[in-house]
Amino acid sequence: MNNSLFAPVANEIALVEQTLRESADVEHPWLSEILDHIVSGGGKRLRPALTLLGGKFHNYNLDLLVPMASGVELLHTATLVHDDTIDNAAKRRGRPTASKLWGGGIAILAGDFLFARSAEFVARTCNLRVIRLFARTLMELCSGELEQSFSSFNRSQTRESYFDRISKKTASLFATATESAGILSDAPERDVQALRSYGSNLGMAFQVADDILDYTADEERLGKPVASDLIQGTLTLPAIVLGEKYPNDNPVAGVFDKRDGELRQQALRRTIEIVNNSDVLPECYRIAQGFADRARDAVADFPDNPPRRALVDIAQHSVVRHR
Amino acid sequence: MNNSLFAPVANEIALVEQTLRESADVEHPWLSEILDHIVSGGGKRLRPALTLLGGKFHNYNLDLLVPMASGVELLHTATLVHDDTIDNAAKRRGRPTASKLWGGGIAILAGDFLFARSAEFVARTCNLRVIRLFARTLMELCSGELEQSFSSFNRSQTRESYFDRISKKTASLFATATESAGILSDAPERDVQALRSYGSNLGMAFQVADDILDYTADEERLGKPVASDLIQGTLTLPAIVLGEKYPNDNPVAGVFDKRDGELRQQALRRTIEIVNNSDVLPECYRIAQGFADRARDAVADFPDNPPRRALVDIAQHSVVRHR
Repeated sequence: MNNSLFAPVANEIALVEQTLRESADVEHPWLSEILDHIVSGGGKRLRPALTLLGGKFHNYNLDLLVPMASGVELLHTATLVHDDTIDNAAKRRGRPTASKLWGGGIAILAGDFLFARSAEFVARTCNLRVIRLFARTLMELCSGELEQSFSSFNRSQTRESYFDRISKKTASLFATATESAGILSDAPERDVQALRSYGSNLGMAFQVADDILDYTADEERLGKPVASDLIQGTLTLPAIVLGEKYPNDNPVAGVFDKRDGELRQQALRRTIEIVNNSDVLPECYRIAQGFADRARDAVADFPDNPPRRALVDIAQHSVVRHR
Repeated sequence: MNNSLFAPVANEIALVEQTLRESADVEHPWLSEILDHIVSGGGKRLRPALTLLGGKFHNYNLDLLVPMASGVELLHTATLVHDDTIDNAAKRRGRPTASKLWGGGIAILAGDFLFARSAEFVARTCNLRVIRLFARTLMELCSGELEQSFSSFNRSQTRESYFDRISKKTASLFATATESAGILSDAPERDVQALRSYGSNLGMAFQVADDILDYTADEERLGKPVASDLIQGTLTLPAIVLGEKYPNDNPVAGVFDKRDGELRQQALRRTIEIVNNSDVLPECYRIAQGFADRARDAVADFPDNPPRRALVDIAQHSVVRHR
């Protein structure tokens, strides 16, 4: 995702960066160092950009939107810290993870601290509706992650269970990023719901595209093996569509059944091969594009200004970036 | 701690139990089972009892106090889930821990879910002051835990650093339990501060007494080895006072320096022996009693009704329960 898409809010994103750095503003120098390592890890800052863009259609109040955008990004960051700890990941965005540098125990507690700080940022808005929305969103995120853990190596998953899982794991925070922008800018309820629908559908498109990329990019671009989700036991849309299309000869069975042997490697290679050279990928792209279209349509009635065009471009880019 | 101390709020604690069980009320049966295992783990429910008792002096509104008390207890529960995961503990209150039953990854996510649910309970009060207080309290709890992790096996810790650490790790949540009761019952600010001071000092007394117990109880009562804090590298008040009194012949050095050998066992036995048979313990009890006295004094001007007498008894009991 290209930062020029965020042009209408570029200056405000700098304010979010500054607020995020406040997270590391604690008494103890070593704790400050850990938190600073985590929050300065970069990332595209897509979620806060969505909050800032979403706030541009009515009463654009940065005293509310900047803390909210910072809270959304920090919640995302905290979940990544815990994910990396659970997966025992060594790197994130090219830098060593907190759990690698300081151990799993410290990483768990630092993630907890950042959850709390994100809630504290959101509480600064003094808006009860977004405060409650934010708490429910964290519950949804955790449910989605837990569902993913529990469905590991289960290949009888449907599209519907996948959509339900990524809706919680990814789209819920996108939806909260844009819905809260509507609430905090005093948008009429109809626009609040349009913004929520935009964020939710964008989050779905984004996650489906990410899950496609896991099969189509090369190892160097991914920074991890191709089909790493499948290797770790997570069934995503390409593997599910593959199972729908080839029910009697589904190589995923071999990936999940035969752990670590040569037969498993064969099944893995065959899965990647079929996904990339069949009607599986076009079907997955069609689905991603469908979500992106619904995101675009959700803001169709908004005034045609630079923020709206940015939202439309982001939606389209969420799919094409991977092609 | 004896439940009869909570007599003035016994019925209301049943409402808290019911609210806590709502935490496990989620769509997925297996997630519900995990959450139910965690929240039904018992415990004395001391913190919610404090919120309920603290609300008895002014406008006693259970619609606010029950969600708040439930949020406080659930936050405590969530931190225990993460602590047990970090320590790789097999049991808690005689039952297997979540991390033992379902693995560390699930336990981290379940703890995160319960953090979110606790924030959601507190948000039900629709009171911005307690919502912000609650977010800051979680930050303090995590800071205290992180300080403890980072000071492991460091024997040059002072009483002051110990008090600072337990103030964050334990007393902050006690203080929030009682301060929020004052806020939610529309108490005048003077009484809110008195309740906060009561909770904070009680929390300190409680933690010092717990840390004494780690040296004085037998393994059967503790459910873990005597001086398990010290074995894990955590310096608590008895070991700090020991170092003050015997600066040139401090056996703690041998416990921290010589890992796992026979010399270490000797140093450990000597530490326990001196703590139990010197002027170290009386000094520690004096300190615990000092905090308990300050807790009692904080509510001295409150009307002399059953809730106040319960608070006074709880303060006194926090120290004597261990003698």
